[in-house]
Amino acid sequence: MPVITSTANARVKLIRALRMRREREQTGLAWVEGIRPAVEAIQLHAPIDLLVVAPDLLTSDFARDALDAAVADGIEIMEVTSAVFRSISDRDGPQGLGAIVRQQWLSLPDVRLAEGDRWVALASVADPGNLGTILRTCDGSDAEGVILLDTSTDPYDPAAMRASMGAVFSRRLVRTSFEAFAEWARGERATVVGASDRAPETYREADYGARTVLLMGSEREGLTTEQQTLCDRMVSIPMRGRADSLNLGIATAILLYEVLDRREHEA
Amino acid sequence: MPVITSTANARVKLIRALRMRREREQTGLAWVEGIRPAVEAIQLHAPIDLLVVAPDLLTSDFARDALDAAVADGIEIMEVTSAVFRSISDRDGPQGLGAIVRQQWLSLPDVRLAEGDRWVALASVADPGNLGTILRTCDGSDAEGVILLDTSTDPYDPAAMRASMGAVFSRRLVRTSFEAFAEWARGERATVVGASDRAPETYREADYGARTVLLMGSEREGLTTEQQTLCDRMVSIPMRGRADSLNLGIATAILLYEVLDRREHEA
Repeated sequence: MPVITSTANARVKLIRALRMRREREQTGLAWVEGIRPAVEAIQLHAPIDLLVVAPDLLTSDFARDALDAAVADGIEIMEVTSAVFRSISDRDGPQGLGAIVRQQWLSLPDVRLAEGDRWVALASVADPGNLGTILRTCDGSDAEGVILLDTSTDPYDPAAMRASMGAVFSRRLVRTSFEAFAEWARGERATVVGASDRAPETYREADYGARTVLLMGSEREGLTTEQQTLCDRMVSIPMRGRADSLNLGIATAILLYEVLDRREHEA
Repeated sequence: MPVITSTANARVKLIRALRMRREREQTGLAWVEGIRPAVEAIQLHAPIDLLVVAPDLLTSDFARDALDAAVADGIEIMEVTSAVFRSISDRDGPQGLGAIVRQQWLSLPDVRLAEGDRWVALASVADPGNLGTILRTCDGSDAEGVILLDTSTDPYDPAAMRASMGAVFSRRLVRTSFEAFAEWARGERATVVGASDRAPETYREADYGARTVLLMGSEREGLTTEQQTLCDRMVSIPMRGRADSLNLGIATAILLYEVLDRREHEA
C-alpha cells in the first residue's frame, strides 16, 4: 500500500475542508480524529468511508487491534506520513489515527418513545464543546440522544466531536424545527421538562414522567417564553451564589443524572 | 480625559501580554474582559488596577451604572477607541469593558474549615475552560472555592475567566502541593472524597461528612493511586453507556450538587 506523502492529495484536502461546516453539510461527511473516537466509530460500525493512519505516530496497541478489526470489516485504510497527518490534525499531539465518516441523522418521525426513554432537546445551542459534552453525558447517563432545534451548532464540528469522546457515534442525533418538535412531543406523550431559575419546583422534587425530554435553552438566553409554554414542567436548579445560571452542559448533566437516579430507583 | 488611540500604548501592550501565563505570574495581574465579569469585579470590590472602556462599544446601561460606582470608589478608568479595544480583545463581539485586576490567592494555612464548608481540590486540571466552569459551579452550589494542586492550569487564563462568568471573583483560590494539601486536610478534619468508576459506593449513597473536600483527578488520568489513598471515601458516578468517565467539570458538578442537596436536607 503506497504511503501518501503529499498534503495536496485530494482526500487530504477533503479532510482539511471538512473543518468547515459548509463542506460538511454539502458532503454529509465528517472527520473524526483521535484514537478513542475513531475506535468507537469502528467498534460501533459507524459508516466509515476511510481510515487514515500515520504509522509513525500511532503507538497504541489498542488502536492497532481496532485497525485489524476494521481491515477484517473491509474498511479502506490510507496510510500517510506523520507530516501529512499533522497537516490535517487540529491537535497539538496528533495520535496518528482518524476517519472520514458519513454523518448519521435520524428523522424525528422515526423516533418513537418507549417507557424509560430520555432525550435532550437543545434550542439553539451555540458552542460545539457544550454540545459534545452533552453527548458524552447522554452516553454516561444512558439517554438516547440529542434533538437539535432550529439554529443549533453542528455535532460533527471538530470541537464537538472531540468533547463527545466518541459519544457522537453511540447516541442518536436528530435535527428539526421547534414546531415539528412540539408536535412530535405531544404525539409521543413525552414529558417535556425545562429549566429556569425562577421555577418554584426544584429538579429534585419534580416528576419527570415515563418518557422524558429535557428542553434546554441557548447559552445566552435560556428558554424563550414560547419554549417554556411547551414544557409540561419547569424545574429550578438551586443557585446559591451570585450567578443566575450554570453552564448549559452542567445544567443538562445535573438533570440527566437526576432522571437516571429516578429510573433506577423506580425500577 | 484623553482617549487612547494607539495600540502601542504601554498599558495596552501590558494587557495583550497578560494573555501569556508567564506575564501573569511575573506581574500578579490578569485581564478580565466582558461586562458580566468586569461588573462582578467592581461589585465584589476585587482589586482593580485599571478599568478599560471603549465608549463606542459599550451600550449596556447595566455596565454604565457599574462604571459610575467604580468612579465613586476611586478606580482609575482608561478610555480607548473601539479599534484599540478590539486589539486587546479575545472575542468576536467585544463588549467594550474590561479590567486589569490583581490576582488574589489565599494561603492554604489560612483556610480554616467550618461545618458545612465545601471545597474542590483539583489535581492537575489542564483545561482552563474546565477550571472556569468548575468555579462557576462552585458559585451556583455555594462551595467556597478551588484548591489547585501541583501543575494545574491558571484560573486567570482568559478562557478560565470567560467560563467562570465572574465566579473567579466570588470564589476563593488556593494553590499548593499535594503534600501540603494532604497535611492540611488531616489537620482540618476534612472528609476528602474522590471519584472513580470502580468505587463500589455510588455518589448518591455516600456520606460526605461535615467539612467536604472533593478531590478530582486530571482530565486524562483521573486520580493517581497516591491521591486515592488520601481519600476518606471513593464514590462512583454511574456510567451506563460506553464511556468510562464524564467530563471533569460535569463530574465535579454532579458531586457538588449532591453535597448541596445533603446540606439543605440535613439543615
